[in-house]
Amino acid sequence: MNSPFQLSLSTIAEIVDARLVGNPDQLICGLAALQDAGPNQLSFLSSSQYRKYLGSTGAGAVLLTESDAGDFPGNALIVANPYVAYARLSHRFDPKPLAVPGIHPSAVVEADAQVDPTASIGPGAVISSGAQVGAGTVIGAQCFVGARSVVGSDGWLAPRVSIYHDVHIGDRVVIQSGAVLGSEGFGFANDRGHWEKIAQIGGVVVGDDVEIGANTTIDRGALAETRIGNGVKLDNQIHIAHNVHVGDHTAIAACVGISGSTRIGRHCTIAGGVGMVGHIEICDNVFVTGMTMVTRSITEPGAYSSGTAMQPAVEWRKSVARFRHLDSLAKKVQRLEKELMAVTRDSQGSSES
Amino acid sequence: MNSPFQLSLSTIAEIVDARLVGNPDQLICGLAALQDAGPNQLSFLSSSQYRKYLGSTGAGAVLLTESDAGDFPGNALIVANPYVAYARLSHRFDPKPLAVPGIHPSAVVEADAQVDPTASIGPGAVISSGAQVGAGTVIGAQCFVGARSVVGSDGWLAPRVSIYHDVHIGDRVVIQSGAVLGSEGFGFANDRGHWEKIAQIGGVVVGDDVEIGANTTIDRGALAETRIGNGVKLDNQIHIAHNVHVGDHTAIAACVGISGSTRIGRHCTIAGGVGMVGHIEICDNVFVTGMTMVTRSITEPGAYSSGTAMQPAVEWRKSVARFRHLDSLAKKVQRLEKELMAVTRDSQGSSES
Amino acid sequence: MNSPFQLSLSTIAEIVDARLVGNPDQLICGLAALQDAGPNQLSFLSSSQYRKYLGSTGAGAVLLTESDAGDFPGNALIVANPYVAYARLSHRFDPKPLAVPGIHPSAVVEADAQVDPTASIGPGAVISSGAQVGAGTVIGAQCFVGARSVVGSDGWLAPRVSIYHDVHIGDRVVIQSGAVLGSEGFGFANDRGHWEKIAQIGGVVVGDDVEIGANTTIDRGALAETRIGNGVKLDNQIHIAHNVHVGDHTAIAACVGISGSTRIGRHCTIAGGVGMVGHIEICDNVFVTGMTMVTRSITEPGAYSSGTAMQPAVEWRKSVARFRHLDSLAKKVQRLEKELMAVTRDSQGSSES
Repeated sequence: MNSPFQLSLSTIAEIVDARLVGNPDQLICGLAALQDAGPNQLSFLSSSQYRKYLGSTGAGAVLLTESDAGDFPGNALIVANPYVAYARLSHRFDPKPLAVPGIHPSAVVEADAQVDPTASIGPGAVISSGAQVGAGTVIGAQCFVGARSVVGSDGWLAPRVSIYHDVHIGDRVVIQSGAVLGSEGFGFANDRGHWEKIAQIGGVVVGDDVEIGANTTIDRGALAETRIGNGVKLDNQIHIAHNVHVGDHTAIAACVGISGSTRIGRHCTIAGGVGMVGHIEICDNVFVTGMTMVTRSITEPGAYSSGTAMQPAVEWRKSVARFRHLDSLAKKVQRLEKELMAVTRDSQGSSES
Repeated sequence: MNSPFQLSLSTIAEIVDARLVGNPDQLICGLAALQDAGPNQLSFLSSSQYRKYLGSTGAGAVLLTESDAGDFPGNALIVANPYVAYARLSHRFDPKPLAVPGIHPSAVVEADAQVDPTASIGPGAVISSGAQVGAGTVIGAQCFVGARSVVGSDGWLAPRVSIYHDVHIGDRVVIQSGAVLGSEGFGFANDRGHWEKIAQIGGVVVGDDVEIGANTTIDRGALAETRIGNGVKLDNQIHIAHNVHVGDHTAIAACVGISGSTRIGRHCTIAGGVGMVGHIEICDNVFVTGMTMVTRSITEPGAYSSGTAMQPAVEWRKSVARFRHLDSLAKKVQRLEKELMAVTRDSQGSSES
Repeated sequence: MNSPFQLSLSTIAEIVDARLVGNPDQLICGLAALQDAGPNQLSFLSSSQYRKYLGSTGAGAVLLTESDAGDFPGNALIVANPYVAYARLSHRFDPKPLAVPGIHPSAVVEADAQVDPTASIGPGAVISSGAQVGAGTVIGAQCFVGARSVVGSDGWLAPRVSIYHDVHIGDRVVIQSGAVLGSEGFGFANDRGHWEKIAQIGGVVVGDDVEIGANTTIDRGALAETRIGNGVKLDNQIHIAHNVHVGDHTAIAACVGISGSTRIGRHCTIAGGVGMVGHIEICDNVFVTGMTMVTRSITEPGAYSSGTAMQPAVEWRKSVARFRHLDSLAKKVQRLEKELMAVTRDSQGSSES
């Protein structure tokens, strides 16, 4: 991808508050990894495993730390955290189309909806009665915003996002395509074998600076609200059930499922494919590794896991067969311990005699 | 969420067939949990773990059983099953917007589609040639209903639902946003390393009183139909492959994947994250616990599981390392048993001598 | 499903290059399994487990191999690979509606988008600035094609597919409803507890003859492209993270999650529910069984697995409890081995004395 943007190294140094060692007039048109970058591209060294590419990189300039800069003969932008500097700078080279403020003629906006004049409503989008869209926010093509729902300022909804009624979204929130917020959670009372539906009358509250991935779904609360804290980052295809709370600055990777009424703390990291049962509490600063089944509350910060490691299938089948009889194996070992103790006692007894 | 609705306790008692002990004129405007409810809200006691909140609840009235009612000084609505009574009542306090009958001017309805005059077709929805929409059914904004597909009466499709062609949906079916019914299943014949696509020419048949969650996908049959029975409840992000049958009144939680041609019985409960291989049969009244890998048919009712329990990651890594060598561990134990038997025989022999 | 199509056996024999034994004028109107087929339907015998139905089938004709044909008294179409022949033929009996070339009046096509006159753009679809749609390609209702994205020739996008900007899709690509290509991947730099978003400025490149399932999501690259090779088949609800490469002719079943920058080889088969960590490489011709957690690179072709097998829950709980203490069990066995060796030595010593 070529970016239509062009910045001088002196401008870039200002943007990321870097000390520039090299040519301030060098023009940069894009970003690339060390091993891929050309003379008009900027790169970064954020991990020692990539240092091997530093000597041979063709990059026009590199973001690096003071301690790494010594090795580098090219243009260097010296910063405290090159990865964070790259993150900040990346938005200057994003080819994502800019939306034009205003309402596309094919959009359907109810008369009593409030759309800020600086907001953009894309083709085919629907803004329902009583909904509000804040300043600078882009509602992509074919999005649906339900009755009385609020999308704060400076947000971006990619095309084809569904927001049901009574969903409150903060400022600077990004929602990827296919995501659904406010869907009716899985609430049914079992009446002699038949499932009686429970209306889901709560809403969803999403904080500021939240990111929600493609095809992720967040159900509305059964009675009160489902809550996503400030700075929370949700990857693709995540399921957040009704009444869940996710604490501030927690990051959840793709394909995670969180069951109803579970509370997750602040600054947690939940890896991909994790499943959590309902009605549990996860404290702050917990890291759950990939595909873990979380079946109970976690009260101590730290890393948690379940599952088994990958093996060649032939070997794995043997492990699996033994796993099914693990209890009897453990009992055998207990019996062996007792019997051996008896033998030892006997033989000691006989040798003592 | 405040509900615009207001009902007297005498009316509520009639709706749920309750015996009222207390003030029949007390007005109720909403529902809440015991610990959250205020004087204009109704609550319920459905599980003994919440009985502790009964003494201090601020609820204007509580749904409870005869046996729990004795403890309660406030307005009591005495019913056989408070949770079912709450489920029935909840719909009276649902702030979900009511759709207006008729076809929105921005919807595209083919000339030979049959839309009941009491049905509602939302903005941007597409109703294809030969499709039928029944009485009282709401097709949400931006939904797609394919050729010859039928949606029965009194159903609700949330915005942005896809129904392909030749999908038959019963009465009172609710489908959440982003769900897809009738997509082409994963059918390919391997022709010397290349995959040759098999057209998916069957349809989908969905019974009455079914609920389908957000972003759930149900593939059409390869030759015959994929079938979802009456009263089935499907949560979010479920994958139902081609030719699957799900029996009446079975409930499936979020993130479950069912592979092709598998048959699930009636009144089963499949917890979140379960995966099932194809071409197996699950009998009636089976409960599969969360994230279980179902690799064979189940012929006896009961609960089934797989996986391992969560541990701190440091301990888990040790378990996992041992799991890989479980077969050799079991063989060691067998060897130990033999050797110990030999020793015991010897020592008995020597003591007998 | 009844197909409106009708072909004679002689025509069918020509299409699939079969030797016909029987009546060339027999008319076939549809396809069905051996046990379901009627006199106007064609069936096939592709696996020995279905041979039992051959004697009693009511099919008007059967696709079978030379060696199976001997047993069969009815109309036989003899081919080298009946399943591949059925695959090729199946498209002649597909009731999927044919799209009319041209742009639906309700579609929004930017002035500088290039749509081939033989392509079809469905109701409510949006084709953005600089996008291209090739000859014979069908863009379904309510699809979104982003700026500068290219969809090749003879493809089919089902209704409600999202293609972001700068996504390049080859020829004969089929994308099911709800799929998302080019969404912004999960890239954040942690700045003292807060997540700083990294713009995702790479694109997506999809080869020829690719199939992408319903609600599958493919993130765009962070810097370079996410790449899906030729002939790749992706089932429903798959998550492909940024920078992933999937090799030619690899098939991935439903609910699989592939983390960022992982490279999968050619001709691999990844079963349902598998999860892969990021930054690993899977070589060609690998088969990963269902729900496996792939935590490291695979350098040898073959089958790989993780997890445990399903048990009745009561027995499973015992296995799980023992799994948590597997390391201490293994250590006990080591201790037992040593102690027993000592006892054996002693008893041999004493018997030798």
